[in-house]
This record gives sequence, structure tokens and C-alpha cells, in this order.
Amino acid sequence: MPVIAGVGLATAAAGIRYAGRTDVLLALFDSGTTVAGVFTKSKCPSAPVEWCRAHLKAGKARALVVNSGNANAFTGKSGRAATKLTAEIAAKAARCKPAEIFLASTGVIGEPLDAAKFAPVMQGLAANARAGDFLAAAKAIMTTDTFPKVATATAKIGKATVTVNGIAKGAGMIAPDMATMLSFVFTDAAIGAPALQAMLKDAVADTFNAVTIDGDTSTSDTLMIFATGKAGNERIARAADPRLKDFKRALNAVLGNLSEQVARDGEGARKLVEITVEGAVSKPSARRIAMSIANSPLVKTAIAGEDANWGRVVMAVGKAGEPADRDRLTIWFNGIRVAHKGARDPAYDEAEVSAAMKQPQIALKVALGLGKGRDRVLTCDLTKDYVSINGDYRS
Amino acid sequence: MPVIAGVGLATAAAGIRYAGRTDVLLALFDSGTTVAGVFTKSKCPSAPVEWCRAHLKAGKARALVVNSGNANAFTGKSGRAATKLTAEIAAKAARCKPAEIFLASTGVIGEPLDAAKFAPVMQGLAANARAGDFLAAAKAIMTTDTFPKVATATAKIGKATVTVNGIAKGAGMIAPDMATMLSFVFTDAAIGAPALQAMLKDAVADTFNAVTIDGDTSTSDTLMIFATGKAGNERIARAADPRLKDFKRALNAVLGNLSEQVARDGEGARKLVEITVEGAVSKPSARRIAMSIANSPLVKTAIAGEDANWGRVVMAVGKAGEPADRDRLTIWFNGIRVAHKGARDPAYDEAEVSAAMKQPQIALKVALGLGKGRDRVLTCDLTKDYVSINGDYRS
Repeated sequence: MPVIAGVGLATAAAGIRYAGRTDVLLALFDSGTTVAGVFTKSKCPSAPVEWCRAHLKAGKARALVVNSGNANAFTGKSGRAATKLTAEIAAKAARCKPAEIFLASTGVIGEPLDAAKFAPVMQGLAANARAGDFLAAAKAIMTTDTFPKVATATAKIGKATVTVNGIAKGAGMIAPDMATMLSFVFTDAAIGAPALQAMLKDAVADTFNAVTIDGDTSTSDTLMIFATGKAGNERIARAADPRLKDFKRALNAVLGNLSEQVARDGEGARKLVEITVEGAVSKPSARRIAMSIANSPLVKTAIAGEDANWGRVVMAVGKAGEPADRDRLTIWFNGIRVAHKGARDPAYDEAEVSAAMKQPQIALKVALGLGKGRDRVLTCDLTKDYVSINGDYRS
Repeated sequence: MPVIAGVGLATAAAGIRYAGRTDVLLALFDSGTTVAGVFTKSKCPSAPVEWCRAHLKAGKARALVVNSGNANAFTGKSGRAATKLTAEIAAKAARCKPAEIFLASTGVIGEPLDAAKFAPVMQGLAANARAGDFLAAAKAIMTTDTFPKVATATAKIGKATVTVNGIAKGAGMIAPDMATMLSFVFTDAAIGAPALQAMLKDAVADTFNAVTIDGDTSTSDTLMIFATGKAGNERIARAADPRLKDFKRALNAVLGNLSEQVARDGEGARKLVEITVEGAVSKPSARRIAMSIANSPLVKTAIAGEDANWGRVVMAVGKAGEPADRDRLTIWFNGIRVAHKGARDPAYDEAEVSAAMKQPQIALKVALGLGKGRDRVLTCDLTKDYVSINGDYRS
């Protein structure tokens, strides 16, 4: 991962919940850094989500503090006090105002977060912050993730080359309606906060919002972007500015890459599943049908069992409530047509299909034959390991 | 189970899919039997569902044929031909018109149903039909059910005592939006078909439609009621007739009993879970929040792990999209208050709660503190066995 000028990173083990691993990330930003963010649509958001929303309007950031091990969600007044204390501790170390500190927490819900644990490590974090170790940053924010998630891309803005780096953590409680999980994007481009916000909102629609692991939307979903302005491009104020075209491509690439990693690393997942619906009456209709398939426990367990069970796909199409005609449906698994015009494909070959289902990546395509609406979502299979991981996560 | 005058039952092994067990049920009805039904709202219903809908308007039934092993769903033209052939075979045996035959099929989706297999057994079924063995009838329609489901109740209509018997099969692919699974109710009351239809629609709302196993709505969900009119009550034409009050109570009791059995016997389930939401802004809002909790894989796996993970309940409340205030939420597991006004209960005792979570029945109550809306739904936990059962069901 390349360096982003104006971003310093440091991680520490504050003992929030885990032993023997890092659990706090501090990112320091140079003065002049702009910020944008999108958050969970949950009606019961975490305290850090409320903190970030409240301070996003000013559009300025000097630091980001992320902890794993405790989500500081459903923690009432003590949760609000914990965010305030964390921001105060970080502001002292970063020599800025608490309102310029952004916060995210991930981990168990409903347990009070002891923010005092940040105090002993924060000065050291600020002193040690260095340009560059994004992999260590991604590791510090992991919970049940099995690998750290990073991605990078470059883009031209005028004559300047800018870099976009992203980190993410995901694994469970991932569903769309915003950003799903935690992800932070850093760039040295000089872009005003309102333009960043508009581009982030656009970019999330077909990336993070098109991923579902289990249909459960977290209280804490957070995606933020920080732009330090150190790349030397002329500062851009409007998202519609044509000079941002290549930057948008790079931002989409980073978010697309990270969100695919999140799907691939779904809790207990053994297969990455790409669901494409075409021939729907509209793109939103295709999205709803694709999500109905992606969230169906019966489809997901069939894929875990390497069974090309198109009957369950028909069921999931039918329950979506969107226009669909059973007798026009065509279904493919990894390019093999298993069902055509409402019945099993005449050329169906169980051995061929079974072999295809053993692949680690499954492309499930459904053609409705009604219109031109098309969309694509990512998910994973539902395995016994998902049940194990979530059957004793808290205890 | 008591006898219902005017109903004859017989079962046989037609070898549709299973070996060594019964897989066809024939119910014969005396002339004058009225019928009503509610069906899946799937946009891709099975061929038998389409057959029943088409013939329900006349309101008359002489026989019901149910097979397990093959759902005759997503079978295209051959599926329609199979329903027609089945009805013709049964009509010949029952000496009635094919339009007076009602059909239901349950089992694998997407495989053609060989209706010719019914021909060798149908005459024998008609000849052997006897008043009474509802348990054998319930066994013949099972798929992944672990026990047959029957229920009975009596009611007064005027001076006559009428009996209501029901059978059901469920287990997986159970979700509301109609009836979920297959269930058939038989009564000797004399009630017109439109009144039966209105009462059935009312009764299903808080019984079968308040049960969810996995959020997956079947292509084949069917609930039908047959009224032979042999009990001697004066025939009643309108559902609003005050003489039907006690009958409605009995019908609700039978459907409530059967739907609870379906939830208890969810695929892989070890716990029956009753979710009550109160203090919502309305009953429909309470229902949507209760369903969001009941369909959350994270809540269901936590219950499987005997973990009173109220944080995930908060998550599921939040993602429902209904009015909710995190800081007013109160949550109980089996009567023990674990969270109060947006945070962990000050008196929370892990040992006490852990002991309560070991019970085979879990009552999860959420108070929102916003209004008077209240509702209740039933579900079960999500275990590794659900994944096993559905990971290799077809193959």
C-alpha cells in the first residue's frame, strides 16, 4: 500500500476486549483535511455514529479513532459520555478540537465501553503515527474477519496524480442500507467536503450497498473518506466537476474491491456468490430480486452444500414481491443453464453442474425476460461455521 | 382425533420420491361440502396452487389429494398437465368432476411430477377411505417434519356441536404472507363457502402468518378448510353472523395450535421462540419489528447458543425501519429484564440469564415505549442442523 501524504497511522493494544492483539487505530490528518461519511440507516445507531453525524457538517477532520472489541452501541448515556471522553483524549494528543475527531467502534453491542482505556495509549499513538502502514491499520479494526482488507488505486486530477487507499472490516451483521461494516478511505486529493460527500453517496450504491452477508444491518455501519489535499491538484469544490471523472473511477474501484473482500470473508463463508438479475422491469426491481435471493437462507445453504438448487432460486424470486413470470425464468450457475422458460433445462446434466458448484466462486444469474432492468449483488454461502461463530460470539 | 362426519381419509405409498413410507393422502367429502382457501403470495406459485385458486370460486369440494416428495413447482407446462391428470384420476375414483378435486404437493421444487404414479393407487384409496385417521393423514404429508401435526376443537353453532380438525406440515421454507406450508382443516359445520373464506382469512393473520422459520416463503403454501355440513346446524351464509362466534374461536384455536407446532418443528430447531413487541406506534409496526427480530440470523444463532444477546435484538429493532427510540428500549428474555431504557439492566445477572436461556422455550419481549401497538410472532432458533438439513436436501 502506498503512502498518503498528510495521513499518519498508528495502532496499539488498549485491552478493550481482546488480549494479545492491537485494538485501537489512530489516524492523524494534516490541517486542511476534508471529510465525508455515510452511516447505517438503523433506527438504533451506535453512539460513535451519532457523534460522527453531528460533527460531519463542518467537513473538517484532524483525526480518526477506531477501536475493535466493543461497538459502544446500545450503551445509553454512558455511550455518549464515552464518545465525548474518547474525542477529548484524542484531541489533546492531536492538538485539535474534539469536534475534529471522528470515531468508530466495532465489536460487542450493549456492553459499556470504558473510554478511559484510551488515555494511556493515545499520546504514544500520536507520537508514533507514521505515513503508511495501512495493513496494520486494517488489522487493528478486525473482529471476526479472517484477513485484513486493504485496496488502493490512483487517478489523475488535472496533471496531478492522486492516490486513494481504503481499509475495511466486515464479516457479520452485514447488509445494505448504507455502508455495512467499517471502512475508511484516505486520499491526498484536494476536494471539498460537499463534493466528497456526493461522490461517496454515489459510489456506495453499487459497492457496499450491494453486499449482504446475512441481511442484518449493524447499528455501527460507517464509511468515511478523508482527503488531505497534499497531492497538488487544484482544489475541486463540486462533485459534477469533469476533472473528477478519473477520481470517481478510482474511488469506485477501491470501494468495489473492499466490498468484494467483505463478501468473500463473510462469517463462516466458503464461497463468494455473485448474483446477477437481468430482464427485470427496472434496476431497483432487479436489485430487490437479487437481494431476496442473496438473503435467502435456503439458497445460501444449498450453495454451501454445493447443490445447484434452482427451485430455491425460483422461491426467492417469487417471494421478492416484484414482477416475475415463472414461465419465463432462466437460471444459470457458473455459466451452465440449469433452468429455462420455467422448467429444468432439457440439457441439464447433474454431473456437469455438480462439478461447477465445487468452485470457490459461484456466479448465479437469473433472467426474468420482462424488461431491461439489471443489477448485481454479492453475498456468500451460509455454513455451519456461521452458526458456530454467532452461536457463541458474546460469551 | 375425533371423526368428522362426511370426511373419509386414506393414505398410500405411491413411490413419488420416498421409499417405505406413505406419500399420498386422499380425503373424500360428501356431496354439499363447501371449501375455502388461502395460498402463498409468491409470484412463482406451484401448479397445484394455481389449480386450487382456479377452482375455488365455485366453493364446492368432493376430494382433496395431497402428495409429499415433489412440490410440482417450477415445472412449467408439464406441471399444469400433472395437476390436470391428477384431478382426472381422482375424479374418476371419487365419481365427481375434476373441478371438485383440490390438490396440494410438497417436496422438491423444479423436478417434474409423474402424476401417472397416482393411477395405480387411487381406486384403492377411494375404496379404503374411512372416517377418522387424521394422524395417518398428517404423516403422509410430512417432508422434513420430525412429527405429524394435528389439532382439534369443538364449538357450538346454535344448539349443534360442531368439530374442527386440522392437520399441517411445515418445517422449512416457512414465512408469513399467507399460510406457510400445507394445512387442511375439516369440519362438520354447515357454513357457506364465502363465510368460510372470510373467517379463514381473518384467522390466519395471527396464527400461520405470525410464524416464520427462515423468512423464505414457499411457492406452495396452502391452507384450506372443508365444511361437510353434517353436524346438523342451520346452514350459515355470512361470516358476520353472531352464531359463528364460538366457531371462530375454535377455528383460531386449531390454527393457533397447528402453527405453534410448525414453529416448534422448524428445520433443525431446538427452541420455540415467542417474540412479543409492545409499545409500538401501531400493531402493524409491532408486527414488522417482531418479524425483523424473528428473521434475524444473528438473533436466531444467539438463541441457539443460549446467549441472551440483547445487542442483536437492538440491531434487529433498528433495521426494521419502524419508529423506535434506542434510549427507551426495554428487553426481557423469559421474564428477566436484561436491558432497560437503552442500556444493560443495572441488575443484570449473567448466571441467572444463562440458566433461563437453557429452557426449550424462549419468550423474548421488547417494549418500545412509544405507543400502544402490540403483536406476537413465533419462530425457532437457527442451528447447525438447519444448515445440514438444507445443505443436502435435494441430493
